Amino acid sequence: MEESKDHTTPKVRQGVAQPNKLNPKLARFQRKRKPKTAEAYVKGILRGDRMLLSQAITLIESTNPQHQALATEIIEQCLPSSGNAIRLGITGTPGVGKSTFIESFGLSIIEQGEKVAVLAVDPTSQVTKGSILGDKTRMAKLSTHPQAFIRPSPAGTSLGGVARSTRETILLCEAAGYDCILVETVGVGQSEIAVHSMVDFFLLLLLPGGGDELQGIKRGIVEMADLVAVNKADGAALALAKQSKQAYRNALHLFPPKASQWVPQVVVCSALSGLGLDKIWALTQDYVQATKDSGFFDNNRRQQAKYWFQETISAQLQALFYEQPAIRAKLQSLEQAVELGQHSPFKAADLLLALFRQSFQK
Amino acid sequence: MEESKDHTTPKVRQGVAQPNKLNPKLARFQRKRKPKTAEAYVKGILRGDRMLLSQAITLIESTNPQHQALATEIIEQCLPSSGNAIRLGITGTPGVGKSTFIESFGLSIIEQGEKVAVLAVDPTSQVTKGSILGDKTRMAKLSTHPQAFIRPSPAGTSLGGVARSTRETILLCEAAGYDCILVETVGVGQSEIAVHSMVDFFLLLLLPGGGDELQGIKRGIVEMADLVAVNKADGAALALAKQSKQAYRNALHLFPPKASQWVPQVVVCSALSGLGLDKIWALTQDYVQATKDSGFFDNNRRQQAKYWFQETISAQLQALFYEQPAIRAKLQSLEQAVELGQHSPFKAADLLLALFRQSFQK
Repeated sequence: MEESKDHTTPKVRQGVAQPNKLNPKLARFQRKRKPKTAEAYVKGILRGDRMLLSQAITLIESTNPQHQALATEIIEQCLPSSGNAIRLGITGTPGVGKSTFIESFGLSIIEQGEKVAVLAVDPTSQVTKGSILGDKTRMAKLSTHPQAFIRPSPAGTSLGGVARSTRETILLCEAAGYDCILVETVGVGQSEIAVHSMVDFFLLLLLPGGGDELQGIKRGIVEMADLVAVNKADGAALALAKQSKQAYRNALHLFPPKASQWVPQVVVCSALSGLGLDKIWALTQDYVQATKDSGFFDNNRRQQAKYWFQETISAQLQALFYEQPAIRAKLQSLEQAVELGQHSPFKAADLLLALFRQSFQK
Repeated sequence: MEESKDHTTPKVRQGVAQPNKLNPKLARFQRKRKPKTAEAYVKGILRGDRMLLSQAITLIESTNPQHQALATEIIEQCLPSSGNAIRLGITGTPGVGKSTFIESFGLSIIEQGEKVAVLAVDPTSQVTKGSILGDKTRMAKLSTHPQAFIRPSPAGTSLGGVARSTRETILLCEAAGYDCILVETVGVGQSEIAVHSMVDFFLLLLLPGGGDELQGIKRGIVEMADLVAVNKADGAALALAKQSKQAYRNALHLFPPKASQWVPQVVVCSALSGLGLDKIWALTQDYVQATKDSGFFDNNRRQQAKYWFQETISAQLQALFYEQPAIRAKLQSLEQAVELGQHSPFKAADLLLALFRQSFQK
């Protein structure tokens, strides 16, 4: 885990002879591996160097403390140049065609002159080795487009870890000049909350079908949506998709108004035929305009920054707590006693907190 | 704040001469105030002594460490005798008639042979001096009924404090033999989450009206409801209430299924005429039976206990963190820098965490 996950430069293995005089290629690699300064990364990112952007993201994702310190420095220096993109979250159940949608939608935005970055928050990639975006070939055209930058979710990390690295990657992509950041996620509830807290606009993809289709979506996700797009509205499914649009519209109407004052819209679209893609981008821009005018846009970003600040404190405090040997020794038996009703949950928590204070004062 | 909030026994003020030989009434009070042991309280609670139950709850609500220690002991000893009631959460927007509903509903349950306790989670009572249950006269019959026990929300406490004391009070009421615990709350979102995490069944009261009425309810609350009751279904409003019932039923149908597998029901009721009250109690019992059969009931209570255990740890860790002088000195400026985009939220959090570790290791 101490090793960098940098997959953009080959690794020079320890113990291997270093025949740099004999092998000019390896010598070049070794020069390349000379640690770059934060300034070098930042300069490269600001001029849109994709290789340096990739490497900086790899530093963000690394668990090596030196890499983390360097990443933090890069981020801090990029901050003044960040914040200018539209951050768009995209979710939907498996089978809704997210990858194909992002491929088509991304290309349609690029046609309008924008630079697009695609990121992902997929904590399940730990198990599935990257169920989304892992395979760039699913976005064959977009991934090779010079105006697009695609970065899969890092594998083997917790939701907290993925969320943090994605949140920080957004900043670097913005500094690198991307105008629209698409953050893809899977419909597992917690990851939607994380993505919702780092984007400006939240798009939910659904399949044509009755109102019952909403049943496949985790509780709370529908409420987050600023826009519902009924995807695969092509061929024989077009008529059904239009019916679904009406059903979803009625359903959304029953939800309480959003803090943004934005009334969530429902559209039909097809990644295949391109139907509705322009409309989705136009609605996104309408939203940005309306919320910038009302002040919600900027206020929401401030609230989001505060949220991540507080969330990080809370998460790290808990990590610190649960890693204490004194806590670990007692936790399981106390938790069991609580679940069996042998201890009040408050009393049990108090007991552990007392241990925590003691273990720190040693 | 160090002083007990015990309002069941008059206080003997410091500095006042103690004429107990001259005043037999005061002498009796002073004997009464001799600290009782936890065993004395527990014995009283178990035989259903309302005075001792009230006093024990006052200890729970007290901020005096000695009272808290005694309260904890009482709770721990009552635990084996607790858990046998149906815990029912009730919410609804102001004006929906919660107090009148609870008065009528409580009396109708008592008629069926049950003992009813009514508690409240109302963090707003800090401001409004107890906007709900504060005035027992609004439940004139129920509050004087020997089979009922009503306890207002303690004033001047945070949601966390009220939630904890209410959660603990439930246990004491159960040990005292109450079969049904009604926990009332107001429609402000956070307090519903707290109540939802301490009850078995969650009832949402709505007014007759179009589906648009749902708009008055905070996001997420409708999703928690196991039962929606359209109240004030009497007189000219009866027909409208029946229409609303259908509209709400259609709306609820669009929500994803609940973990309990229970399909939320919608009924009309009237606290005035008594219409529907029996049905609400019957549905509550159906729910309890169905979820006990499926194992959800017990599992849910275990999960709730675990939730409060973890929530308490998290809340107290944060309290500990934010009370450190080193943190307080830096917090505001860092938070501001985060909001203004001058610091990454993660970097700012890391800085504070480093201070926290240092301030502990001193």
